[in-house]
Amino acid sequence: MKKLINSPEKLVVESTEGFVAAHADLVKAHFNPNYLARADAPVRGKVAIVSGGGSGHEPMHGGYVGAGMLDAACPGAVFTSPTPDQMYEAAKAVNGGAGVLLIVKNYTGDVLNFEMAADLLRADGVAVESALIDDDVAVKDSLYTAGRRGVGATVLAEKITGAAAADGLKLKEVANLCRKVNASARSMGIALTSCTVPHAGKPTFDLPDDEYELGIGIHGEPGRTRLKLEPADQIAGRMMEPIISDLPFKAGDEVLLFVNGMGGTPPLELYVLYRKALALAGQAGLKVTRNLVGSYMTSLEMAGASITLLKLDDTLKKYWDAPVKTPALRWGC
Amino acid sequence: MKKLINSPEKLVVESTEGFVAAHADLVKAHFNPNYLARADAPVRGKVAIVSGGGSGHEPMHGGYVGAGMLDAACPGAVFTSPTPDQMYEAAKAVNGGAGVLLIVKNYTGDVLNFEMAADLLRADGVAVESALIDDDVAVKDSLYTAGRRGVGATVLAEKITGAAAADGLKLKEVANLCRKVNASARSMGIALTSCTVPHAGKPTFDLPDDEYELGIGIHGEPGRTRLKLEPADQIAGRMMEPIISDLPFKAGDEVLLFVNGMGGTPPLELYVLYRKALALAGQAGLKVTRNLVGSYMTSLEMAGASITLLKLDDTLKKYWDAPVKTPALRWGC
Repeated sequence: MKKLINSPEKLVVESTEGFVAAHADLVKAHFNPNYLARADAPVRGKVAIVSGGGSGHEPMHGGYVGAGMLDAACPGAVFTSPTPDQMYEAAKAVNGGAGVLLIVKNYTGDVLNFEMAADLLRADGVAVESALIDDDVAVKDSLYTAGRRGVGATVLAEKITGAAAADGLKLKEVANLCRKVNASARSMGIALTSCTVPHAGKPTFDLPDDEYELGIGIHGEPGRTRLKLEPADQIAGRMMEPIISDLPFKAGDEVLLFVNGMGGTPPLELYVLYRKALALAGQAGLKVTRNLVGSYMTSLEMAGASITLLKLDDTLKKYWDAPVKTPALRWGC
Repeated sequence: MKKLINSPEKLVVESTEGFVAAHADLVKAHFNPNYLARADAPVRGKVAIVSGGGSGHEPMHGGYVGAGMLDAACPGAVFTSPTPDQMYEAAKAVNGGAGVLLIVKNYTGDVLNFEMAADLLRADGVAVESALIDDDVAVKDSLYTAGRRGVGATVLAEKITGAAAADGLKLKEVANLCRKVNASARSMGIALTSCTVPHAGKPTFDLPDDEYELGIGIHGEPGRTRLKLEPADQIAGRMMEPIISDLPFKAGDEVLLFVNGMGGTPPLELYVLYRKALALAGQAGLKVTRNLVGSYMTSLEMAGASITLLKLDDTLKKYWDAPVKTPALRWGC
């Protein structure tokens, strides 16, 4: 797979330089250690929200830095956890005195490094809460994970907690809201092709021309099974069934339906998937009153998609609808 | 190339159904003939802006239907011009009494069909203007075009004319503004891989693993030349040189720099390209004061990118900055 890059070594830093040059009104960058922060950080008196993870999932997380969402994001190397010093320095820089919520996707490296950063911050007297995202119903454990993986719910949690922090909620309240979003969300992904990690230079896995991978992870790690390629409507069914049959959905629930592209799947196809997922949600008695469709949490150029359902209540709806102004998600302002 | 679809025959209609279900607050669909219109169309007293073209370039044009941009968009089959009756019915439906501007990308089928639609509309007494977009400096004529092809400037023209129409400008004024955007913009694209048209089922062209195509069209039609793959900074130079050396840029100009992904190129890579294009614009004495980075005019899942430079003045800046509320472009509201 050819890449539009100068070298794998320079990729993340050069991309970050381009990113902050393009979005200087919203985001500023710090290098050594690397993190992105709101241009106007720290925001005094507001709980700061910090997340991060390996690069290669853009626009997550840097694209979600801005008013009403993240205060800082820490990009690791491609598909590699950021280091504790990145997280520590980012959190220190954006802490406005009301404490810091760390949103952590459940991957072993991320969890360990965010824990270490939290310890360092507490030693400095910074109030810190961590909230884990593990919404992927595909597998119990996987290549990089003990327990379920954190996927699409991350984007929703960052939006909702960001709005809650902007609304003046306290650290414990924002952290508990994040846990509630995670507990109320379930996701599942599929891949039609592998991505290629720039350093590796060859596809992460081989997938025959007539097969797809059900339950894929966002680093190309294996899912549940490989199946012969099927029509999109059948694929939608295979993703929606395990999501809906898992907790916490029941007939009559209002839900947010998030159809996410893995990077290489065009909008034309994502909306075909959305169409069927919406119908299947309806058949299960769920009422889709909010949605998000697009490539918001990617795996480089992987062709594939994920579906996330989030059970809504008035609080989640209020914070989902609240204004947000980031490079990748923007409404209401 | 595997596709997340049910069948090539159903693709555009099913995708449109999903699209309007997801964005019902902004867009409504009409089938037979197929077009998308603003949910609140027609807007009385406002010049209506209508565009369209083959599908496969999403979010263009349907993603740009909404307040401050298009009133209607006509999707053809993949890489195939929409028909005159689509354009005619769409224009009739969204005409608010102040006339209709047709924004036409310079491809032979689009030009002929929009001309026929314009004739039909005039016969009905509808005031119509057409404005052609032909900003691609890569080639003079091509597979589907006499003269230069219409590419990235289309997105910019739709945004700027949409804002001008919302601001109350008259039909002739909005049409002339569109022509000015086109005259002030230059673009160039490259591809690292081919896309696959669903009906064809195989890549449109073969490109060896160590080559890229300079000057590619948005339907995979040939460009200027094939070159051995180079670092992104060199590729940026090969795109920027013909753009800048063509009219109408001179040192001291304010410009909008638009780095567009062709579909299969992730944000990580687009920002590497933006970084260098920005530096090269600066070296040419151009002042980049506005930008757009993302996959806004695609070729299905093609890996590649295009660069568009638009020379700005106070009017263009004002209408670029004006609020827009569409599925794919949204700010200020």
